[in-house]
Amino acid sequence: MPTSPTSEPLTAASVRLPAELVARSGFLLVRLGLNFKARALEQMAAAGFSQYHYSVLALLDEEPRETQAQIADTLGLDRSQLVRILDGLEDRKLIARHRDTTDRRRHTVSVTATGRRQLHKLRHTIDRLEDELLAPLDQRDRDALHALLLQLAETHDPSCADPN
Amino acid sequence: MPTSPTSEPLTAASVRLPAELVARSGFLLVRLGLNFKARALEQMAAAGFSQYHYSVLALLDEEPRETQAQIADTLGLDRSQLVRILDGLEDRKLIARHRDTTDRRRHTVSVTATGRRQLHKLRHTIDRLEDELLAPLDQRDRDALHALLLQLAETHDPSCADPN
Repeated sequence: MPTSPTSEPLTAASVRLPAELVARSGFLLVRLGLNFKARALEQMAAAGFSQYHYSVLALLDEEPRETQAQIADTLGLDRSQLVRILDGLEDRKLIARHRDTTDRRRHTVSVTATGRRQLHKLRHTIDRLEDELLAPLDQRDRDALHALLLQLAETHDPSCADPN
Repeated sequence: MPTSPTSEPLTAASVRLPAELVARSGFLLVRLGLNFKARALEQMAAAGFSQYHYSVLALLDEEPRETQAQIADTLGLDRSQLVRILDGLEDRKLIARHRDTTDRRRHTVSVTATGRRQLHKLRHTIDRLEDELLAPLDQRDRDALHALLLQLAETHDPSCADPN
């Protein structure tokens, strides 16, 4: 690390976070979460996508025909935000909007074959980032971590709860 | 939940996140981390403090006399940001600045007795929030989670590494 003669040298001790913070699981969650989010956003942005594009495609891959209201509620987006996201996906032919046959004021949305191919690519990008994140853990520890995180998420965030 | 007759009812199914997202440890880390951060900021703000006030006081409690440069480097703050944080703490008599006897251009910073009492209060607030967060886990699972998070943090974020 280049240091000018007048700058105070960065010793190992001076860049170690307070032990009190590192001892907190909450602090580590925040720190790891923010770092991972930043990396994921950066990688998706490099491909011209946002986290919401990925979430919407993943949702439509599981629920083939959702109304705009359902998508917004599921992903916690406001309606105008969702409209912009869907416009971006529709412009690239990744989703299609359809007028609901039972209620013509409503639109349903589905993912196209092109959208499904793009979803595979985004999924691959996130898989790779998660592999990097979890690299220090063997499969057993990865499973243990996931089970623990899921237990917290299911308690604090019902939208993460398994319906079964 | 009140719903007007014309709104689409929010069924349990419509607010469940895509299984693909919930299956990702990276996603759960981000979601839990952001939620915890929001709660911690809110609670600290209610007491008139920010996360940085807490971090600075915790650091000075462990390293009694740090230069401003050391504090900024340790906590990853830029110098002008740190000056504002220290000004806020000094106005409330929670820290004291001293001119370094060996280099009069430098200032060292220490926590006052009042600052230490305030640190205890902030620590108590965060303890309570962490207890809420970790409530679904028994002590053994809490320890397991912490060890796993620490392993990730030590790999990806050397400032979290144990010096010993």
